[in-house]
Amino acid sequence: MNEKTTLDLENLRELIDGVDKQLLNLLRKRLDLVAQVGTVKHAAGVPIYAPQREASMLAKRRKEASEMDISPQLIEDILRRLMRESYLNEKDVGFKQVKTDLGHIVIVGGEGQLGGLFSQMLTLSGYQVKSLDKDDWHRADELFDGAGMVIVTVPIKITCDLIRDKLNNLPEQCILADLTSIKSEPLNAMLAAHKGPVVGLHPMFGPDIGSLAKQVVVVCDGRGAESYQWLLEQITIWGARIVNENAEKHDKAMQLVQAMRHFSSFVYGVNLCKEEADIESLLQFSSPIYRLELAMVGRLFAQDPELYADIIFAQEGSQVAISDYLDNYRDALTLLQTGNREAFVAQFKDVAKWFGDFAPQFQHESRAMLQSVNDMKTN
Amino acid sequence: MNEKTTLDLENLRELIDGVDKQLLNLLRKRLDLVAQVGTVKHAAGVPIYAPQREASMLAKRRKEASEMDISPQLIEDILRRLMRESYLNEKDVGFKQVKTDLGHIVIVGGEGQLGGLFSQMLTLSGYQVKSLDKDDWHRADELFDGAGMVIVTVPIKITCDLIRDKLNNLPEQCILADLTSIKSEPLNAMLAAHKGPVVGLHPMFGPDIGSLAKQVVVVCDGRGAESYQWLLEQITIWGARIVNENAEKHDKAMQLVQAMRHFSSFVYGVNLCKEEADIESLLQFSSPIYRLELAMVGRLFAQDPELYADIIFAQEGSQVAISDYLDNYRDALTLLQTGNREAFVAQFKDVAKWFGDFAPQFQHESRAMLQSVNDMKTN
Repeated sequence: MNEKTTLDLENLRELIDGVDKQLLNLLRKRLDLVAQVGTVKHAAGVPIYAPQREASMLAKRRKEASEMDISPQLIEDILRRLMRESYLNEKDVGFKQVKTDLGHIVIVGGEGQLGGLFSQMLTLSGYQVKSLDKDDWHRADELFDGAGMVIVTVPIKITCDLIRDKLNNLPEQCILADLTSIKSEPLNAMLAAHKGPVVGLHPMFGPDIGSLAKQVVVVCDGRGAESYQWLLEQITIWGARIVNENAEKHDKAMQLVQAMRHFSSFVYGVNLCKEEADIESLLQFSSPIYRLELAMVGRLFAQDPELYADIIFAQEGSQVAISDYLDNYRDALTLLQTGNREAFVAQFKDVAKWFGDFAPQFQHESRAMLQSVNDMKTN
Repeated sequence: MNEKTTLDLENLRELIDGVDKQLLNLLRKRLDLVAQVGTVKHAAGVPIYAPQREASMLAKRRKEASEMDISPQLIEDILRRLMRESYLNEKDVGFKQVKTDLGHIVIVGGEGQLGGLFSQMLTLSGYQVKSLDKDDWHRADELFDGAGMVIVTVPIKITCDLIRDKLNNLPEQCILADLTSIKSEPLNAMLAAHKGPVVGLHPMFGPDIGSLAKQVVVVCDGRGAESYQWLLEQITIWGARIVNENAEKHDKAMQLVQAMRHFSSFVYGVNLCKEEADIESLLQFSSPIYRLELAMVGRLFAQDPELYADIIFAQEGSQVAISDYLDNYRDALTLLQTGNREAFVAQFKDVAKWFGDFAPQFQHESRAMLQSVNDMKTN
């Protein structure tokens, strides 16, 4: 680079620094304004996540951007990122308390990660929350006395026994809820152990999310739905979306997505380990799509094995799903070993047809995901 | 919502609209400034992607953000997204031509997607590019006459035969390169067919990327490396990173990541199809992690089956890798069927140990990825 080039670049970079300074000021201003919206919404008990308002605001901005020859997707992506930040900050204001005459809430397993998250959200919404963990059973009667709701969130393998043995004598008007990732058995156990209102919840997210905005909570009705409507409303105020589903259907879907997903990732990790793959060099080669895959597999192994054993071993149906997958895998491998390329292509086309419009939709979506993975690269 | 709340929200939203208007103006200004940087760099032939400069700029902004009580990650994410936009726009200026006395370039398979992308990038860099597709062989002699470089990018299954049969009489000083996703066999075929400079390239990205910034191109040296250094420099100017690797090592790694990845996604799709899974309802349930997975699987089936058949059927070694995975899968299923939870947990821990520091690193990375998937949700 010659002197002139260096000088030109330096001047331009100074100007960019100035723009970025203004950008930071604007961000600060926007975050403050959205925080004020949060305060107003909080006082009125309006949910923080308003999909329609969000969509119409984004449509307006996209149009304005186009008129300025700015890519509409750019402003949408930036505003979505900003909204995430604002959702995170909502916590600072707290949330409206929907049910003010509930009595206190007991979280059985409140010191676990998910229990801790619900405890935090409920406390931020003005409820009195007490935690009951494995060393607290000697004072269970005292904790349950006057409780308006008991939420169970303990490892799957002990959930049903615990409900049967320890939660069969709750105050009758008390709501009994659980957060287990399977629903049929815990729901039946709760209905058998408790005469009052019962509801099964499955928060479809890990405890490491910063905000519940846009996350899904599956609800399986048990008994006395009118008594716990406030809870669903409360969860909506936290920003999550409620999906009502039948417990059996939910469990079947979970076998297909959750158990199989985790199992496949587990085997993938085992496989890499046995092949003594060199992660460093795999990363060197990795296109965004492989990096994403490696990250998803590696992610699993940073977490608690017991948690995954719980999920994978919980349902007998999962074995069937996993075993079906193995059969399909074996059949496909036979195509490969016999060089039956034509059959591979034919089957590929059948599946593509079955995916229908979802295939191009997923391609479009995944492109955006992969671009954002590429943005994160640092070398 | 009462009248006061509605009014308060309306007022705040008007203020936010004003801030967003200023934001758009700033974005316009910043894009223009960076475009000017592009023009200066273009004239000087400096690569558009400068990792160190980028890192130090981001570090500065993060610090400034912190001082204003803005999350450093927020400004980093926004700037990274903006940089992506600027990389996309770089194309409008074109790129510096590193080698000005090359003669023309022939792309065999230039009408394919990847051929088209390279043709575009080379043309934007001032090279004269001619395309040779399957109907053009009658005028091959004319096209090859005086060519400074021939790039082969045809389906894997015909690559080696084509090199042997059709590219054995190129001008001696002409560079022969290929873009095949396997490297050993094409490289050997090129070395046998051509006496001049030979180089194998594997662009680690799909043709649907908008910019080469931060993408990886694997380079396997063939012969006469000094003659094609300009090409590697040219690719670097486009923003990509060159990774030098031995062809056999590259192919081995590709069996592990590429062939197996695509094969597993294929089987996953077959499995969903056979189970007659209801995609709509799976999406209803889907946490960001499952949505990501579904998108990655669905993505495959929106694309050309022949392309994937090519990749999967290309290397015999892939069969071994895929078959090893099947064995590991079967062994893990046995653990599940015999209820051997302890062995599962023990193996999980072994793999976690093997992943070492990569596991938490991947967890951290995947969290950012999943958050950005969640940002994209619209309901």
